[in-house]
Amino acid sequence: MTKAIFYHAGCPVCVSAETDILNLIPENQVEVIHLGTDKSKVKDAAGAGVKSVPALVLSNGNVLHINFGASIEDLK
Amino acid sequence: MTKAIFYHAGCPVCVSAETDILNLIPENQVEVIHLGTDKSKVKDAAGAGVKSVPALVLSNGNVLHINFGASIEDLK
Repeated sequence: MTKAIFYHAGCPVCVSAETDILNLIPENQVEVIHLGTDKSKVKDAAGAGVKSVPALVLSNGNVLHINFGASIEDLK
Repeated sequence: MTKAIFYHAGCPVCVSAETDILNLIPENQVEVIHLGTDKSKVKDAAGAGVKSVPALVLSNGNVLHINFGASIEDLK
């Protein structure tokens, strides 16, 4: 099974959501990517349909935008 | 442990998010409330900080607004 990917950018909203999401989802089912420190992944995230962070891209391709920390445009 | 509460209003965005969330979170850890059919709960949701649906209110009181289906104001 493909893992879900949680994209964030280190913002307070992101960190709070990350803590909550990792409490809900078993850790081995989600990969966490920090777009602030891993800029090369911004294009992947945008390609997957991520418009803002924090966001969770599911293994079925659906994107759940969770609250609002920063626009993906501001991370490019 | 208090359950998380997933508030929705039957909109397409809500239904899609509900399916995804219930795939991620064990069913016995989340209660699903349809604000379109259970109007009396709209006040509870607003009081918990829900601004739009679908939203997940966690047992720690944090609110995760997931994508955007409808404003809570439109459900009052």
